[in-house]
Amino acid sequence: MKFIHTSDWHIGRQLHNQSLLDDQRFVLDQIVELASQHDVDAVVVAGDIYDRSIPPANAVALLDDVVNRLVNELNIPLIMIAGNHDGHERLGFAARQMNDSGLHIIGPLSKDVRTIELQGKQGNAVFYGLPYADPATVRHVFDCEVSTHEEAMAKLLEQVHEHDSHGLPKIVVSHCFLDGGSESESERPLSIGGADKISPTLFTPFNYTALGHLHGPQYKGAEHVRYSGSMLKYSFSEQHQNKSVTLVDIAEDGAASFELLPLTAMRDVRIIEGLMAELLEQGKTDAHNQDYLMVRLTDKNAILDAMGKLRDVYPNVLHLERTGLMSDNTKVELSRDHIKKGELDMFSDFFAQVSGEPMTDEQQQAMTAAIEELHKVERTA
Amino acid sequence: MKFIHTSDWHIGRQLHNQSLLDDQRFVLDQIVELASQHDVDAVVVAGDIYDRSIPPANAVALLDDVVNRLVNELNIPLIMIAGNHDGHERLGFAARQMNDSGLHIIGPLSKDVRTIELQGKQGNAVFYGLPYADPATVRHVFDCEVSTHEEAMAKLLEQVHEHDSHGLPKIVVSHCFLDGGSESESERPLSIGGADKISPTLFTPFNYTALGHLHGPQYKGAEHVRYSGSMLKYSFSEQHQNKSVTLVDIAEDGAASFELLPLTAMRDVRIIEGLMAELLEQGKTDAHNQDYLMVRLTDKNAILDAMGKLRDVYPNVLHLERTGLMSDNTKVELSRDHIKKGELDMFSDFFAQVSGEPMTDEQQQAMTAAIEELHKVERTA
Repeated sequence: MKFIHTSDWHIGRQLHNQSLLDDQRFVLDQIVELASQHDVDAVVVAGDIYDRSIPPANAVALLDDVVNRLVNELNIPLIMIAGNHDGHERLGFAARQMNDSGLHIIGPLSKDVRTIELQGKQGNAVFYGLPYADPATVRHVFDCEVSTHEEAMAKLLEQVHEHDSHGLPKIVVSHCFLDGGSESESERPLSIGGADKISPTLFTPFNYTALGHLHGPQYKGAEHVRYSGSMLKYSFSEQHQNKSVTLVDIAEDGAASFELLPLTAMRDVRIIEGLMAELLEQGKTDAHNQDYLMVRLTDKNAILDAMGKLRDVYPNVLHLERTGLMSDNTKVELSRDHIKKGELDMFSDFFAQVSGEPMTDEQQQAMTAAIEELHKVERTA
Repeated sequence: MKFIHTSDWHIGRQLHNQSLLDDQRFVLDQIVELASQHDVDAVVVAGDIYDRSIPPANAVALLDDVVNRLVNELNIPLIMIAGNHDGHERLGFAARQMNDSGLHIIGPLSKDVRTIELQGKQGNAVFYGLPYADPATVRHVFDCEVSTHEEAMAKLLEQVHEHDSHGLPKIVVSHCFLDGGSESESERPLSIGGADKISPTLFTPFNYTALGHLHGPQYKGAEHVRYSGSMLKYSFSEQHQNKSVTLVDIAEDGAASFELLPLTAMRDVRIIEGLMAELLEQGKTDAHNQDYLMVRLTDKNAILDAMGKLRDVYPNVLHLERTGLMSDNTKVELSRDHIKKGELDMFSDFFAQVSGEPMTDEQQQAMTAAIEELHKVERTA
């Protein structure tokens, strides 16, 4: 049984108000292509299919297209579970009517765990799709007492343990936060204060666990309890992550082996740092000047319309930090004189940029007097 | 080919801020039951499945349940097209993956009209599902020049004319406004100023046209060009309508016959009129006191908390009209004296209700003086 494990597609997500739909289409194309190239028996998406419970219509249309290509054109079964970002009822609509097509969507939690037996070219396997469910939902559906995420998950896994797979490998698909997992800035916490943490040992008894939620690829507890990570970088904190899907192969004896298949973003998400002049120069020849950038500007002087200037060469600068000014502020001694000097310097830079010429001595004196006057008012106020 | 034609379910709709979900479940149960009883070959829903492009999650769950019972349990094919209220992309998600199950959803308009050949116990037929599409959408999808709804529909029907059904009856499913159609208050106009009107003659060449949009059952142009009407009364203007689904039977020679199968609402929508005292008395023994009511109160005096009093016996009064007061106001001559007398009478009613006793002569004089004083201020202002 050979399948691609991916998760956290977050279709419809924005990065600093920038729609990522084209970027998502670009990388989803690769996933479809990889599934075809590697001749997999299934594709598994472990939750957070959409970014919001009510996705925009063009996000729905994009997923519809991906589903058509995988399921109808390539004839590859597709298993998707609802994550904490998904609207379970919406995602799960008409799921029963899709099963025969090879599209298996697990939306709302139900009393009977969804078991999906798939045929592989090298052996079959049973997949158990557990949608994201907080303890309150598990209490409600199973009419039982559970208070932590770990207890809730243990309850859901009871059925997986009990199910007779007739010797076939058991593959769990789940969306949760494993204790010790490494977080990014783009995940929405499942609960406050660590009550969402689940011990990885709950999953080690199964042949493989395909997890979603954490955006960096990683495994916890054992190599076969894995997060595939998201398909794109959804925050600047992920700039050094390598995004991939996980190619999983379950041997006849049930042992799982893995390979990370890298994904290439249409536009990378990265942070660049430097002086304005350097960055403008560098941008002219930067082959990746379309990347989504956070720029840390080290200039210590004021710069008029810094964002506009940067976007001339890097059109997708999404965020600007004036680290040069920030460090000045922290370094500067807060004596009156220093502050006054700082104000004059700042204005002087501003004046030069707007007028194209430095201030004359006379102008400097007038400005110094004006600043002094303001501070007098401030002191007597 | 025998099928049920219904439309305008508007699942998730509210009536004067009152959720109708239980009422909708109640009547959808009847539709499922009628489909089973009459052993139909299909159920056709001609648009406005949901009330809004983004239906609430419990509306999605209700439709999911209905679909499961019709398609999976009863094995009856279900055809649904998107109406002007539906979100076409959302409704149409994964439609291709559902087809084999017998669930045929036609969401966004596509260049190729959806043809669905269904097997009937007494002969097959071809259904053509045309989702609601305004002229701009038709121009965009077909890259053609159409400016009115009629031209747009003619464009869509070209393919239906051209399609070779191998002699099978042609049944068109469409959501539009036929010229001369009788409107209710609960339909959202498709366009302003009558540009949405389509001649019924466009549809007469086909064996049957299952229409949606108008909420009263009716036919236009010919008996086989029909609106089934909505499944519930969605405004008080529909109080005298009888809601039904249309049972259609297409004979071997292609001739269509019809029968209206009545639907019973859990709570009727009706208007009652009378004096408060009469209505309170009548409500005590009214077997239908749970109905959704608009009350027209003919009392000519002020009544404190009229809504609260009525709801003691008619808990689902949704709207109150003080027709007694309204007609008084229109009759009254607008001389100062009349107005003053009116004010004193109003206050006197109010006083009696709050205190439980009529005003004494002394109190009346004080009030008259106060009113006079107010008018003096008014005159000099």
